[in-house]
Amino acid sequence: MSPFAGLSAFPITPATPEGRVIAADLRGVLQRIAQGGANSVGLLGSTGTYMFLDRNERRRAVAIAVETLASTPVIVGVGALRTDEAQRLAKDAAAEGAAGLLLAPVSYTPLTDEEVFQHFAAVAEATDTPIVIYNNPSTTNFTFRPALVARLADAIPGIAAIKLPLPRGDIAEDLKTYREAAPRLAIGYSGDWGCKDGLLAGADAWFSVAGGMFTQRAAALTAAALRGDRVEADRLDADFAPLWDVFKLTGGMRAMYAAANHLGLTAAKPPLPVLPLEGDLRARLVAAIAGL
Amino acid sequence: MSPFAGLSAFPITPATPEGRVIAADLRGVLQRIAQGGANSVGLLGSTGTYMFLDRNERRRAVAIAVETLASTPVIVGVGALRTDEAQRLAKDAAAEGAAGLLLAPVSYTPLTDEEVFQHFAAVAEATDTPIVIYNNPSTTNFTFRPALVARLADAIPGIAAIKLPLPRGDIAEDLKTYREAAPRLAIGYSGDWGCKDGLLAGADAWFSVAGGMFTQRAAALTAAALRGDRVEADRLDADFAPLWDVFKLTGGMRAMYAAANHLGLTAAKPPLPVLPLEGDLRARLVAAIAGL
Repeated sequence: MSPFAGLSAFPITPATPEGRVIAADLRGVLQRIAQGGANSVGLLGSTGTYMFLDRNERRRAVAIAVETLASTPVIVGVGALRTDEAQRLAKDAAAEGAAGLLLAPVSYTPLTDEEVFQHFAAVAEATDTPIVIYNNPSTTNFTFRPALVARLADAIPGIAAIKLPLPRGDIAEDLKTYREAAPRLAIGYSGDWGCKDGLLAGADAWFSVAGGMFTQRAAALTAAALRGDRVEADRLDADFAPLWDVFKLTGGMRAMYAAANHLGLTAAKPPLPVLPLEGDLRARLVAAIAGL
Repeated sequence: MSPFAGLSAFPITPATPEGRVIAADLRGVLQRIAQGGANSVGLLGSTGTYMFLDRNERRRAVAIAVETLASTPVIVGVGALRTDEAQRLAKDAAAEGAAGLLLAPVSYTPLTDEEVFQHFAAVAEATDTPIVIYNNPSTTNFTFRPALVARLADAIPGIAAIKLPLPRGDIAEDLKTYREAAPRLAIGYSGDWGCKDGLLAGADAWFSVAGGMFTQRAAALTAAALRGDRVEADRLDADFAPLWDVFKLTGGMRAMYAAANHLGLTAAKPPLPVLPLEGDLRARLVAAIAGL
């Protein structure tokens, strides 16, 4: 099976306030995912706070994950503001045994299509490890339109997949547009509350924040949706609905730290300036995961 | 005179492709600004590619600037994704002799008002150097609404000024709103093509990209607008109009690298993935600066 199909679980990366990865806690989070039956782990994604960790710690996290997850492929976020830094991170991840690289066009100055194309070409040249285009407009200020995805897929053999955000409109239409633009790419969605519909519409993968902690249920939902069992998929998705509401209010990352703290998996907090959930939102989160 | 009034000139930071600041080229750029009569230099702003340079190089740039600009105050961009890193950058800049710190709430995960407030409080505690709030929604994904500016100004004595983007609506109304929210702060605008109107409406400062290279003309425009001479200000602003058009198309940073290359001030290019201007846009830029 391709490492870019099925449930890809995106965990938090427990770290100290100074940004040092806590190996034991990360191992515990990853073992839970492996036992839950994820098809891959999306290490150092947005939920995994990759942009808040330095190069050494990112490499350490990959080494810990590959060692812990003997039979589950690890896809590693290698985004960086500078092209040369993204190349270095790609080489580090490949050297540690990553099965795939997740590359977002992280920006400060908003980037042009040509800049993003050249950036991806440069990172793809750095290793032989397949690349997932990470289309995450809310964090990168950049949207991959179908024409650019087509150009990237045509010109760069190392590009293997794309992780799309939920569209404003119909997800089946959105999926069809990107399929036609780049037929050879695996296509998955993130934005957990819409991913069931993405899989039912024929997407290959669910890049899942909730799957990084509630893996077994997310895997069951993925399996039901992939075999086209809409009734069962709807039933399993409904259990997650209160969690989706918290995600919409506060983002998946803050919610997953609070969940991990509540479940006793780690005492690590999100990296400052991101604050831990408190008060009402934390109470809602705790109620939302009680049923999971 | 406050370091946060008049023309604040924001230069590029010439650096090698590997991100090493080119001291001789930076000195040349800064001497031109000092001779042109800027009231302050905004070192390591967005045009100064601060987010693309590492901590060592940012500190080196500050040391070079303070040494070169004996009598012109240096305001230094200290934004970073992590709060502890922004604190370290603030301490570095203060130790090197910065007259002010420019702090943007740089984000990957979009930040909440409370997170930004705590971030600013933490950085303000790190030094005694006055802070300019850097409200730059297009690069940070965060907008400082007046209520948050009021809270920051009330609670944090070290906050001295705010750098605002051009509003969608009337700039006099916008200025009035922020003045009422935080009467003790100096207020300046960036977005060069609207700053003349900001100064004419009573703003204290123009945080200027063009001023980082065409300082003498920008200083004359600033002086005319600050003394309320609308006719002269309009006349001087009209000379810049072709440059403002290029800024709107490609952003000030790319344009200023091309201008510096064309004028022979440096051969440095913007940091990859940002690409140098080419073809039509470069020709337009060259034509726009021919009259300056």
